[in-house]
Amino acid sequence: MPRYKLTIEYDGTPYVGWQRQGQLPSVQAAIETAISRFCGEAVTIITAGRTDAGVHAVAQVAHVDLQKTWQGRKVRDALNAHLVQAGEVVSILRAEEIEQSFDARFSALRRHYCYRILNRSSPPTIGARYVWWALRPLDAEKMHEAAQQLIGYHDFTTFRAAQCQARSPFRTLDRLDVTRNGEWIEIHASARSFLHNQIRSFVGSLAEVGWGRWSSDDLEAALEARDRTRCGMVAPPQGLYLIGVDYPI
Amino acid sequence: MPRYKLTIEYDGTPYVGWQRQGQLPSVQAAIETAISRFCGEAVTIITAGRTDAGVHAVAQVAHVDLQKTWQGRKVRDALNAHLVQAGEVVSILRAEEIEQSFDARFSALRRHYCYRILNRSSPPTIGARYVWWALRPLDAEKMHEAAQQLIGYHDFTTFRAAQCQARSPFRTLDRLDVTRNGEWIEIHASARSFLHNQIRSFVGSLAEVGWGRWSSDDLEAALEARDRTRCGMVAPPQGLYLIGVDYPI
Repeated sequence: MPRYKLTIEYDGTPYVGWQRQGQLPSVQAAIETAISRFCGEAVTIITAGRTDAGVHAVAQVAHVDLQKTWQGRKVRDALNAHLVQAGEVVSILRAEEIEQSFDARFSALRRHYCYRILNRSSPPTIGARYVWWALRPLDAEKMHEAAQQLIGYHDFTTFRAAQCQARSPFRTLDRLDVTRNGEWIEIHASARSFLHNQIRSFVGSLAEVGWGRWSSDDLEAALEARDRTRCGMVAPPQGLYLIGVDYPI
Repeated sequence: MPRYKLTIEYDGTPYVGWQRQGQLPSVQAAIETAISRFCGEAVTIITAGRTDAGVHAVAQVAHVDLQKTWQGRKVRDALNAHLVQAGEVVSILRAEEIEQSFDARFSALRRHYCYRILNRSSPPTIGARYVWWALRPLDAEKMHEAAQQLIGYHDFTTFRAAQCQARSPFRTLDRLDVTRNGEWIEIHASARSFLHNQIRSFVGSLAEVGWGRWSSDDLEAALEARDRTRCGMVAPPQGLYLIGVDYPI
């Protein structure tokens, strides 16, 4: 059976997350339903990152095996037609046949996320569902400096959700950059894989630093405590975007 | 009575436009209601640009006279609190006391608009309500070249809505730039004032050029015909943003 790699964009707002949860609206169910309408096959698609409720993606990756060989463009356009018809806010950016050894989840070398904060006195309007509004001024430089302590191989127990199912709390964080552009703050995070709620826990804790309630040392102490209760707030999902997944070639 | 200049951002999607229309949801009514809740005064606010239904603004300007002198920040925060409470997607970015000679409409020297097109095969998801999706490839360079014929003082009858109430169809267009950035095309338009639907008529006609259905000469001929039936399509409102208004000082 030919395998297809799908690159996917979605607005996470109306979904319980990537993963199918019974009859609730999920990104996975939206795409699997579109595939079923396209070629009549009941499939399970495998993804690089099971994003949470309300989290967006501009370049999610998944794979699926279909009975027949189709042109990638044909798969893309047919799935998009069914997604639009169903009123989903999920879009297939690319579909391409790929070797059987490719696995969207296990072949992934690195995941890239971006978190966007609108930092101003006035509430957001345009794109309000795609950003976290932080009213009080944040010191992005201090946030960036403090964030660098989290880079590398650590026990990230403090920064993972209680319900995180990963066997190990150890991960290697490759990048955690905080940059300001006018009223906007962007936080870029990259790692081979992340724990559940890890980035939103980073962002919420870094905001404590940005507001001056935590020092950089407080952040380090929170990491070293390996204690979930030492995490700052967990930033809301609507500011988070999965922006890319790296594979060998 | 002290006069206040308001700088306003809004998501045009849920509104019939800037202007109050009976009981229908309008940006003007949203703000006037917030003012009434703030200080109990029934006011009429005057704006630089009465945007149409579905058109957005990132820096709309209006003025209003109030009985009392307030700090600008106080006015901004109070109006925003009432707007958020009412579920409006209108935000006051700045409020400042200004001299009585200032008139948001008549003092305006120049209005700036931006029109955004997403030009790709896959439907938009994130921010779909803030962009016009054009599926077929557009040649932005040809659009830009053709657009330069519209610069200057012209009878723009071809490019104004039949219901346009301006006494004269003559306007001076200062800028009409078309630029591409990846899948995005932006059209920037500036003039002292615009006719009703003028920019969306420009954009729709320029799209005909971008798709190769019109030549640059066809656009010129359409302008010179001074005939509304010679306009191309009128581009949809959700791609249009009022992005700034210039005043003396």
